[in-house]
Amino acid sequence: MNVIDLNADLGESFGRWSLGDDDALLDVVTSANVACGFHAGDPSVLCRVCDRAAERGVVIGAQVGYRDLPGFGRRFIDVAPDELTNDVLYQIGALEAFARVAGTRVSYVKPHGALYNAIVHHEEQAAAVAEAVRRYDRTLPVLGLPGSVWLRRAEEAGLQPVAEAFADRAYTREATLVSRREPGAVLHDVEGVAARCVRLVTDQQVVAVDGSVVPVAARSLCVHGDSPGAVAMATAVRAALERADVSVAPFAGSPS
Amino acid sequence: MNVIDLNADLGESFGRWSLGDDDALLDVVTSANVACGFHAGDPSVLCRVCDRAAERGVVIGAQVGYRDLPGFGRRFIDVAPDELTNDVLYQIGALEAFARVAGTRVSYVKPHGALYNAIVHHEEQAAAVAEAVRRYDRTLPVLGLPGSVWLRRAEEAGLQPVAEAFADRAYTREATLVSRREPGAVLHDVEGVAARCVRLVTDQQVVAVDGSVVPVAARSLCVHGDSPGAVAMATAVRAALERADVSVAPFAGSPS
Amino acid sequence: MNVIDLNADLGESFGRWSLGDDDALLDVVTSANVACGFHAGDPSVLCRVCDRAAERGVVIGAQVGYRDLPGFGRRFIDVAPDELTNDVLYQIGALEAFARVAGTRVSYVKPHGALYNAIVHHEEQAAAVAEAVRRYDRTLPVLGLPGSVWLRRAEEAGLQPVAEAFADRAYTREATLVSRREPGAVLHDVEGVAARCVRLVTDQQVVAVDGSVVPVAARSLCVHGDSPGAVAMATAVRAALERADVSVAPFAGSPS
Amino acid sequence: MNVIDLNADLGESFGRWSLGDDDALLDVVTSANVACGFHAGDPSVLCRVCDRAAERGVVIGAQVGYRDLPGFGRRFIDVAPDELTNDVLYQIGALEAFARVAGTRVSYVKPHGALYNAIVHHEEQAAAVAEAVRRYDRTLPVLGLPGSVWLRRAEEAGLQPVAEAFADRAYTREATLVSRREPGAVLHDVEGVAARCVRLVTDQQVVAVDGSVVPVAARSLCVHGDSPGAVAMATAVRAALERADVSVAPFAGSPS
Repeated sequence: MNVIDLNADLGESFGRWSLGDDDALLDVVTSANVACGFHAGDPSVLCRVCDRAAERGVVIGAQVGYRDLPGFGRRFIDVAPDELTNDVLYQIGALEAFARVAGTRVSYVKPHGALYNAIVHHEEQAAAVAEAVRRYDRTLPVLGLPGSVWLRRAEEAGLQPVAEAFADRAYTREATLVSRREPGAVLHDVEGVAARCVRLVTDQQVVAVDGSVVPVAARSLCVHGDSPGAVAMATAVRAALERADVSVAPFAGSPS
Repeated sequence: MNVIDLNADLGESFGRWSLGDDDALLDVVTSANVACGFHAGDPSVLCRVCDRAAERGVVIGAQVGYRDLPGFGRRFIDVAPDELTNDVLYQIGALEAFARVAGTRVSYVKPHGALYNAIVHHEEQAAAVAEAVRRYDRTLPVLGLPGSVWLRRAEEAGLQPVAEAFADRAYTREATLVSRREPGAVLHDVEGVAARCVRLVTDQQVVAVDGSVVPVAARSLCVHGDSPGAVAMATAVRAALERADVSVAPFAGSPS
Repeated sequence: MNVIDLNADLGESFGRWSLGDDDALLDVVTSANVACGFHAGDPSVLCRVCDRAAERGVVIGAQVGYRDLPGFGRRFIDVAPDELTNDVLYQIGALEAFARVAGTRVSYVKPHGALYNAIVHHEEQAAAVAEAVRRYDRTLPVLGLPGSVWLRRAEEAGLQPVAEAFADRAYTREATLVSRREPGAVLHDVEGVAARCVRLVTDQQVVAVDGSVVPVAARSLCVHGDSPGAVAMATAVRAALERADVSVAPFAGSPS
Repeated sequence: MNVIDLNADLGESFGRWSLGDDDALLDVVTSANVACGFHAGDPSVLCRVCDRAAERGVVIGAQVGYRDLPGFGRRFIDVAPDELTNDVLYQIGALEAFARVAGTRVSYVKPHGALYNAIVHHEEQAAAVAEAVRRYDRTLPVLGLPGSVWLRRAEEAGLQPVAEAFADRAYTREATLVSRREPGAVLHDVEGVAARCVRLVTDQQVVAVDGSVVPVAARSLCVHGDSPGAVAMATAVRAALERADVSVAPFAGSPS
């Protein structure tokens, strides 16, 4: 039987400012990429998301990012590798406190935003993030783009790389994501996205923007958390997967 | 034989800005109150201090403070108790990552600056900090002022309260500290401070500003880390204690 | 003819996080209390609000607060008076850049949140904020609670104090605000609030929580900007005032 | 007669953390590049530096940088151009408040650190900074590296570009700076640097690392403020220039 994980970015509110519907998404996803306070998320937000995730059996991952609240971690920062390693360790540790208090653990690591994009290609920063995870706990799997320098570096560091696909993003014929600057980069048709996800999981195929069929292998599907209609989209994707007899289950071992 | 711990605030540099001589103090103290990033300390500073402390067998404690880099945690902030609990958990967790990577653990908690002072009397904030430690790990001892609401609340929460005295601060006849706003609040005479510390440890007595002799019981002595002459003062205190056959040893169990 | 100003807090978004409907409120109010970056508001938010306010002839005021993004300026901070003076100067200056670029000027100052509440009674902080405005430009009027230490200190500093009332807040029989911790502190009935505002402006009277009629004199009415229904409430208040032949006009001189 | 300006970075302390000897440097330089709070400098630091600069007749410039206190503005950040324009406006405005209170004005703009380096080549960011100055006050001169995209863009925006040279930095035969990653990039010999500065000003020539003599035209010389020996170096440079009958004077008009 086919099996897939659904992951989404959560815990991205900050103080007075709310973002996304964490509670609703925790009813849909199997893995929660929880912001750790550097690009979003304050301690009380982290506490709440970890408690709710643990109650529902959703696996908690550390969504680590650049230290950039004003930019929401969406701007590349040329951080020195050793500082980036320490920035990532700090974030994992901070989130771990709330995961443990909630009776569970940080069970994987996924970079956020500009850091995610940078380490698709940036050798030093990719190695720096992998080094942080390796030092912290080499049994933690890491989530990323198939073919990225990041997943390659993580594997070289002895970590378990896990490839993800994006439910609502258009792909090129080279199986990379269409840039958000291009028209049509983000798909909004709920049923179309749901059907696409089923095909992606059952046939490991996706139709690219030029109409060609490209192979995409992924153990996890990323659904977005902070856009209007995010919950409806995620819910439709999960329902379609289950109708297609796909097992929706976390990729990371549940904490014992 | 008499035994005393020496503790100092470390890890209070931030980015381009250096403060204190962490390396030199780690050769003198037995417990390092490491800043956790909210009032001072960035991830690379925390990493370095934890590594050095672990190498030298100095016990690492979490020096938790208000979230206030511009004020260095020295300004009272009226944080709601549940938010304060989460702020403290976040800081302990972040530091724990570096302690673990260094092969050791966060082994106690000591509040910093205005938070330290506030919870001498502030019931809700004292309880909030105690609650954070209780949730995180109820076996962690906590350091504070004898007679403070903080130590009382910690004890009520099932934690182990540890009383500390201040090497270079003047005491009132009620055994409280003379306010820093008063003249003579901070003592600068190295030999006088060293002799005072010996008496404090061996006789549990200190001479107050009015000349009266007051009882002070403490399991740890705080030496300052960031003033000019801090290292010389701490070194003289330790030497005098050892000459008086006092055993200088951490109060918190070394990590196994 | 009766005349009243309508003021609201604007520019309180930050980076990825939106708050309030600035554009809609700028169609209703005559004075915009624009956040200056310390409790909310980033440079691009300030730029946008100043541009829109200037286009519509809405007068721009500096909504100065404690330096506390995580707490949204809603937590008292025991800032030293000279530092508070400088914090306020910094914020006014930063906002002034955008006001000038938009062809207008910062035309008044209103403290925000916990600072607003603190200086109702806190002599040193009230004097510190007044000192900042006096140094910057003593012709700037300042907005505050009638009878507050803040308005008294501002007047003593040679500034023009302007009293405001709150459209949707319950009053005590002493003409102070019912604490938000009490039930019924915030009024939600749109038509009731509108009628109350008309009476307040035309008769300088408000019905207190205990049913007594208390005198309240104000040159400006504060309507809230960030709650659900804020725009509808503000619109209804303005419409009711205009139906009652009240002239809705800014208290601060328009920039020439 | 030859005339040259001496500029240095000042106001780079932050809260509890001191950096550089602002008072001593203000006795030597004619232009103070004052940090504006984004990479360094808090409001009380800015106030103090502006007051002292004004007392001594030192011209105040806005040293604008990336919003990055943990990185001291030394890390490239891929800020969107319109956001960068607003970040720069915010900083100039904030500093202006203190300059005006001190009886003077912000009289020029000089980018700091990674932003300075980025806009030697980065077209969009260079244009964004120039746009900020143009909007704020097109009569403000801007300081930068001769031949940089920044000075070209500033000129295209109608601003007055002012070229500077670096007293203690090695030059390549192409008249660019030797990277700090190369050995010998920074010169430490006080007398050598002083003699080099005299030649640079009187003959518009500097000896490059390969021994060749290259032409360098500059209206201002940058001396460093935060390194050990900074004051001695700056003092020696000024003394040597005056002995050589060079007039040391600001390039920016004194405020009237």
